[in-house]
Amino acid sequence: MAKEKKSPRPKAQTPKGFRDYFGPEVTERAEMLQIIAGVYHQYGFEALESAAVETVEALGKFLPDVDRPNEGVFAWQDEDDGWMALRYDLTAPLARVYAQHRNELPLPYRRYAMGPVWRNEKPGPGRYRQFYQCDADTVGAASVAADAEICAMLSDTLEKVGIPRGDYLIRVNNRKVLNGVLETMGLSDDAQRDAVLRTIDKFDKVGEAGVRELLGKGRLDASGAFIDGVGLAEEQIDLAVGFVTARRENDTKTLERLGELIGESDVGHEGIGELMEICDLVSSLGYDDDQIIVDPSVVRGLGYYTGPVYEAELTFEIFDEKGRKRQFGSVAGGGRYDDLVKRFTGQAVPATGVSIGVDRLLAALREKGRIGGAVQGPVVVTVMDRYRMADYQAMVADLRNAGLRAEVYLGNPKNFGNQLKYADKRGSPVAVIEGGDEKERGVVQIKDLILGAKLAADASLEEWKDHPSQYEVPRGDLVAKVREILDLHK
Amino acid sequence: MAKEKKSPRPKAQTPKGFRDYFGPEVTERAEMLQIIAGVYHQYGFEALESAAVETVEALGKFLPDVDRPNEGVFAWQDEDDGWMALRYDLTAPLARVYAQHRNELPLPYRRYAMGPVWRNEKPGPGRYRQFYQCDADTVGAASVAADAEICAMLSDTLEKVGIPRGDYLIRVNNRKVLNGVLETMGLSDDAQRDAVLRTIDKFDKVGEAGVRELLGKGRLDASGAFIDGVGLAEEQIDLAVGFVTARRENDTKTLERLGELIGESDVGHEGIGELMEICDLVSSLGYDDDQIIVDPSVVRGLGYYTGPVYEAELTFEIFDEKGRKRQFGSVAGGGRYDDLVKRFTGQAVPATGVSIGVDRLLAALREKGRIGGAVQGPVVVTVMDRYRMADYQAMVADLRNAGLRAEVYLGNPKNFGNQLKYADKRGSPVAVIEGGDEKERGVVQIKDLILGAKLAADASLEEWKDHPSQYEVPRGDLVAKVREILDLHK
Repeated sequence: MAKEKKSPRPKAQTPKGFRDYFGPEVTERAEMLQIIAGVYHQYGFEALESAAVETVEALGKFLPDVDRPNEGVFAWQDEDDGWMALRYDLTAPLARVYAQHRNELPLPYRRYAMGPVWRNEKPGPGRYRQFYQCDADTVGAASVAADAEICAMLSDTLEKVGIPRGDYLIRVNNRKVLNGVLETMGLSDDAQRDAVLRTIDKFDKVGEAGVRELLGKGRLDASGAFIDGVGLAEEQIDLAVGFVTARRENDTKTLERLGELIGESDVGHEGIGELMEICDLVSSLGYDDDQIIVDPSVVRGLGYYTGPVYEAELTFEIFDEKGRKRQFGSVAGGGRYDDLVKRFTGQAVPATGVSIGVDRLLAALREKGRIGGAVQGPVVVTVMDRYRMADYQAMVADLRNAGLRAEVYLGNPKNFGNQLKYADKRGSPVAVIEGGDEKERGVVQIKDLILGAKLAADASLEEWKDHPSQYEVPRGDLVAKVREILDLHK
Repeated sequence: MAKEKKSPRPKAQTPKGFRDYFGPEVTERAEMLQIIAGVYHQYGFEALESAAVETVEALGKFLPDVDRPNEGVFAWQDEDDGWMALRYDLTAPLARVYAQHRNELPLPYRRYAMGPVWRNEKPGPGRYRQFYQCDADTVGAASVAADAEICAMLSDTLEKVGIPRGDYLIRVNNRKVLNGVLETMGLSDDAQRDAVLRTIDKFDKVGEAGVRELLGKGRLDASGAFIDGVGLAEEQIDLAVGFVTARRENDTKTLERLGELIGESDVGHEGIGELMEICDLVSSLGYDDDQIIVDPSVVRGLGYYTGPVYEAELTFEIFDEKGRKRQFGSVAGGGRYDDLVKRFTGQAVPATGVSIGVDRLLAALREKGRIGGAVQGPVVVTVMDRYRMADYQAMVADLRNAGLRAEVYLGNPKNFGNQLKYADKRGSPVAVIEGGDEKERGVVQIKDLILGAKLAADASLEEWKDHPSQYEVPRGDLVAKVREILDLHK
C-alpha cells in the first residue's frame, strides 16, 4: 500500500479527442468496409495498406520550419530517422508508395485503402483526432474515363451498402470550367482566384444573396461580425454566381449553360469537353441522371484538384440537432489531382480518386435503418452448481456446434439474479437453466427472455398465463428448443 | 524549376522498420481476421476497438523517468495532454478501457480486438515496428473455466482458418505449479526465481543439457562467450528440469508426475487442481488430447502471468532459412493475469486472454497452401480506338453485372503491346479486343491468356494449332464466353 501511494494511480482515460468503439460500432463499420472493398475489387482495384507512420518529409504538407512540425499532425523525432508522423490522410501515403514502388506496380495503378488517419486538431463534438477513411484512386491514367469509372463505382458502392437509388446523387464538376469562368471574369491573381473559390464553396451555407455579398463588398455574418468581401464588380459576380447556379434540368442543358458562361476560354471549353465525355461514359455504363449528374455548384475546397471533381450527396431529409429538416448531405468526394507524385519524382503523374467519409456513411445507414437495430446477444447458459461447470460447457458446445452463439456465465454464480441481470445486459434472447433437480430428471429449463421482457412490460394476467416464457424440455432437445425460440424472434 | 532546387525532393521511402502491404497481402490477412472474429463472436466475445494513441500514463510500463519516455514506444508530448504514445500491444489498452468503462460493461466482459501495434525497437529481417495483433480476453472471471474456454476457442480458431487437427497442439501449463516447484526447490528470492524462469524458457533452444548448465555454473554459448549460470545445486536443478520435462503420454500421468515434483507446496497443489479442472472442462467441450494437452514445458516469459498459461504450437515441419527441418512452432499464447486493471482502480480484477501472432499464422497458412496461391486478376478490356471508350466501358459493365471482375485499360492505348503487358502484370485470365473491323461485324475477340501463356511456354506447333487461345464471338456472347474460359481455369 505504501508503495502505491508513491506513484499515484494513472487515470483510466482516452487522450482528449480519441474514443473507444464497442461491439456493433466495430463490426458494422467492418462489414460496411468489406462490402465497399468488394465493389472496388470488382472494378479491378487492388488493396494497399501502408503503415500509419510516415517520415514528415514524405508527408510534405506539414514540413517542419522550426524545431518541430507545425500543427496538424502528430509528429516526433526518431533517433535515427528524423521526424516521423502519423498519416493525416490516405492520399499522401499513396503518392509516396507510388513513387517508391512505381517500377513494380502496373500502370495505370488502381488501388483502394481503408484505415484510420490522425489529425492533431482541437477536438469538438463528434470530431475526433483519429477517424477512418476509405479511398480509391487511379494513378497514371490521364483519360477522364478514369474519373467516370470512379463516379460509376461510387454509385455502385452506395447502392451496395444500402443507400437506394433516389436517395443519393453523384454530382460532377470540372475545375477547368471554373478556371475558364475565372478567366472570363478577368481574374488572374492566384490569391483572388482562391478567395472566389472559397467563397462560392459556401453557396450551400449562405445562399446566392450571401455569396453575392461576400464576392462584392462584404457581409454581416450571423454573429454580427462583418466579413470583408472579395471586392469583385457586379458583372464578375454575375458570372461567378451564374456558374454555381448553372445546373439545369438535364446534363445537356447544364453543359449548354456553362458554354454561355465561359465565353472564349480554351481551358473552359476543354473542361466542358471532359464533362461531356464523362456523361457519355457513365451513360454507356448504364447510369442515369438520377444517379450521376453534372452540377457546377460542386467546387470542393482543396487547392490541388486540376480537372473533374465529384461529390456524393445523400438527398433524403433528416432532422438536425435543432429539429430542423435538412438534406443529409455529402458522404464522399474527390477529383483529379495531377501533381502529387511529382514532389518525389519530378514527373507529373495524372491521378484521380475518391474518399468516402466512413463515419458519415455509417450515420446515414443508421438513419435509413440499415444498421444499428437491436443486436441480439448470445444464448447464456447459467450456472446453478459451480461444480458442474463441465455440464454447462457441454451445453454451450452443443449450441455452438449447431451454429448458435452461446456462452456460459463465468462470473460468481452465487447470486442467480446477477446471472439474469448479466443476460439482460448482454441482450441475450434465451437463458438456459439446469439445477440439480433438472439434472436428475434429465431436463433443462429454457427461458425466452425476449417474450419474458414483453410480458413483464405489458401483458395482462390472462396473457401471462397463456404465454409461458419458460419451457422445460429434455436435455436432448436443448438445441432444437433454443433454435425454435430464436426463429420465433427473427 | 528554380523553385524545386530550393527544397530538394523528398525521398519516397517508408520509415525504417515499416512496410507497405499490397493486394493479397492485405486481403488474405483481412479474410483470416474475419474468420477469427466469427469464432470469437460465436463464443460470446464482443469487438472492441480502442484508438492507436494512449496517454503514456495509461500505458504504464514505459513511464518517462527523464525528459522523454524510454525506448520501446513511439511517444510525443502533446501541448495540452502531456505525453502520448502509440499502443505497443492490445492488453494495456484493454486494462485502461475496462477501468474507464467498467460500470457500463457486463461482468464478466469478454472482448476481442484486432489491429496494428507499434514498437520502437531496432528493426531486423522480418521484424517490423508496426504489426498486427489479434487478442481475446475475459475480464472479471476468476474461474479457470474462462481459461478452458479460451483454449477451446483457440482450437476452433486454428481449425476454422485452415490448420487441420493434428497439425497443431494447444499446450497448457500453470504458473502456480511452477511456483510450487520453486518453493520446493527452496527459492524465495524474486530475482532468482525470474532467472530460473527465463532459463527454463530456453529449453526449446538449448535442450536439457544446456538448461542444466545455465541453471548451474554457466555455459559457453555458440559464439564462444561464457554465460553465467544461476548457481543452483544439483537437486534444485533436477527439480527444475523435472518440471519442464514432466509431460507424459497423457494428461493424467503428466499431472501425477507434477504431483511428485511439488511435494508439500500448497500453491503447487492448487495449480495442479486448476489444470485438472481445465482438462475436465475441455474434454466436456469435446476436445481430445490431440488438440489440447497439459505440457509443463510451456513457461511463457512475461512476468505478469499468475495462473494458467497456454500456447498454440503448429506441429508440422518446415524448412528453416538454412534448409534444416524444424517444427513451425508457436502461433499464439496467453494466460491468466490478475493484476493489470489494479493499476487504475486499486482493485484486483481477474483476467485471462490469448494473443494470436497474426503474421506467423498467415505464414503458416501460406506454408500449408491455404492462401497465397496465384491470384487471378481482372478481365481486361483493351482499347483499340480511344474514341470508342464508351463501347469498352459498356463491355466491362456487362461483365461486372454478371458478377465478374473486369476493367478497361486506362493507360495510353497507342501501343497495343503495352496493353497486353499490362494484362500480364495484372494476372488477367482474359483480354477482350474490339477493333473497328470487329465493331463493324458485331463481334469481339477474346484471348485466353492463361492457355496462351501455357502454349507459349511448351506447346508443339500441332498443339498450338489444335488449341487456339483466341476466340471470335458475337458481342452478345461476350459474357458467356468469358465465363466459359474462366470456368475452364478454375
